[in-house]
Amino acid sequence: MSITVVGSIAFDSVKTPFGERERMLGGAATHFALAASFFDEVHVVGPVGEDFGEPELAVLSTRGTDVGDVEHVEGGRTFFWKGEYGWDLNTRETHDTQLNVFEHFKPELSNPSRECDGLFLANIQPGLQLKVLDQCTHPRWVALDSMNLWIDVARDELIEAIRRVDCVVLNDAEVRQLTGKASLLAAAREILSWGPSSVIAKQGEYGASLVTADEFFALPAFPLESVVDPTGAGDSFAGGLIGYVVRHLDDLPSTDVMRRAMAYGTALASFNVEEFGTERVARLTQDEIHERVEYLHAITSFEHIAVELAA
Amino acid sequence: MSITVVGSIAFDSVKTPFGERERMLGGAATHFALAASFFDEVHVVGPVGEDFGEPELAVLSTRGTDVGDVEHVEGGRTFFWKGEYGWDLNTRETHDTQLNVFEHFKPELSNPSRECDGLFLANIQPGLQLKVLDQCTHPRWVALDSMNLWIDVARDELIEAIRRVDCVVLNDAEVRQLTGKASLLAAAREILSWGPSSVIAKQGEYGASLVTADEFFALPAFPLESVVDPTGAGDSFAGGLIGYVVRHLDDLPSTDVMRRAMAYGTALASFNVEEFGTERVARLTQDEIHERVEYLHAITSFEHIAVELAA
Repeated sequence: MSITVVGSIAFDSVKTPFGERERMLGGAATHFALAASFFDEVHVVGPVGEDFGEPELAVLSTRGTDVGDVEHVEGGRTFFWKGEYGWDLNTRETHDTQLNVFEHFKPELSNPSRECDGLFLANIQPGLQLKVLDQCTHPRWVALDSMNLWIDVARDELIEAIRRVDCVVLNDAEVRQLTGKASLLAAAREILSWGPSSVIAKQGEYGASLVTADEFFALPAFPLESVVDPTGAGDSFAGGLIGYVVRHLDDLPSTDVMRRAMAYGTALASFNVEEFGTERVARLTQDEIHERVEYLHAITSFEHIAVELAA
Repeated sequence: MSITVVGSIAFDSVKTPFGERERMLGGAATHFALAASFFDEVHVVGPVGEDFGEPELAVLSTRGTDVGDVEHVEGGRTFFWKGEYGWDLNTRETHDTQLNVFEHFKPELSNPSRECDGLFLANIQPGLQLKVLDQCTHPRWVALDSMNLWIDVARDELIEAIRRVDCVVLNDAEVRQLTGKASLLAAAREILSWGPSSVIAKQGEYGASLVTADEFFALPAFPLESVVDPTGAGDSFAGGLIGYVVRHLDDLPSTDVMRRAMAYGTALASFNVEEFGTERVARLTQDEIHERVEYLHAITSFEHIAVELAA
């Protein structure tokens, strides 16, 4: 099995209450690949500039990730994002976004990337997501992320893409915005009616919820005393989630698989936010991941013993 | 066993995207009593005005709640709150608050209220919470709620009250505000260091988290397609939670009891928000409650089957 991801590869300058870093390796595809590479071979598709060197490529290649489709644009500069988080890390302000090499990006996948079993269309222009999907020869499970910008300026194309994927992974506010429905459950069910079999609403520090045609599942975030940098948490979550799903494609459809995949995604995201950028997940071990999934199980379980109540 | 609650008994004028109602029966003590009365005898302590009549008393007395300590203030008017919720019900604006009979309220408990086993100090001035606590002869388990106003203007008294209770039930933003700590877990642990054995952070549509000295537990809110009026959800939650705990006082300390109590609280809160004011919980049945607790169990369970990951 293998997984292809298309999305941003970036330099991030991030300020949080715990410090700041300049031009760290980041981007949705980067954070996704670092998490998903625990489960299967990952092919990264995306452009970088001349400022992207061997040290960055080395991190991106962690655990065998294939960077053959990382396109080096001559004379170009890598996508850049600069932002700052509020004191409780639940709000963030963007100070600068430079699309750079992404402005004229036309994805051209090599055969290994085309022949993936799992595909993650990270948050990029929906038209590009469709172009990548068209090039894949037999993707068995496709998930898609997006953002408020594309809901505002490219809603029709986004919905066209959503119709063709198995799973939509969005922030809960985006699920509401996309459908205009205030109820998360009603909003998710509307998205399901367009085609996907799963909608996953990311809820930041509160965790994530999974909605399918006849099931609902919610998992809290892993409780941490100290969150240092939330950047990329959603993509690490997607990497753990999709990695787990792709390892169990033959068992689908299966709520059990999706629930366990949510737990792996949650565990990966929790490591991501413990340090700046890619630092923590780059040196993560499988034992640490399993331990956190086990702990997530422990902190969400209860036995229902009914008591006699007033009539 | 019996439970005493001190807190507001109110008339609420509420506007939500689903409609509006004028001067409905409401208030923290009211919503708490309607939920807790499923579990044990409840004694309500609080003042009302001459505008509070037999129909309101009849609802307050649902399932045998004792209203002997509901103080009718001659010439007074009942506490009044008017507010409006935003489209996704996660924000609300207060248009009017009239303390009325609460302005000069001096709680004087009768013997049945003093002799309670469980005590809930709903959100009122911390000094009043302490006066009620002083009058109770042998409360075995005491929980306390509060709000941002008291953290701002009566922090020392609030902390004095918190030192004397077993369980603190606050919104997660209030847990942070009270301690000045951005991390919910770190903030809850600081409150634990003051004396209580449990801190419960209410998280609105995201559910609630329980923090004890050595355990953590999180439960999502019950997923509803339609939420009509969130007013009183937190107090219904406290009613179900404390009702369940007081039925199991001989088993304390017990994480299992606390976790199940969280589930009952969550179920009660979910009914509360389905209709305006007290309408839904007033006519609720025990079978409906059990069914929702069972469903909560179903939507939070997963089996951890570890997969072999990259090293």
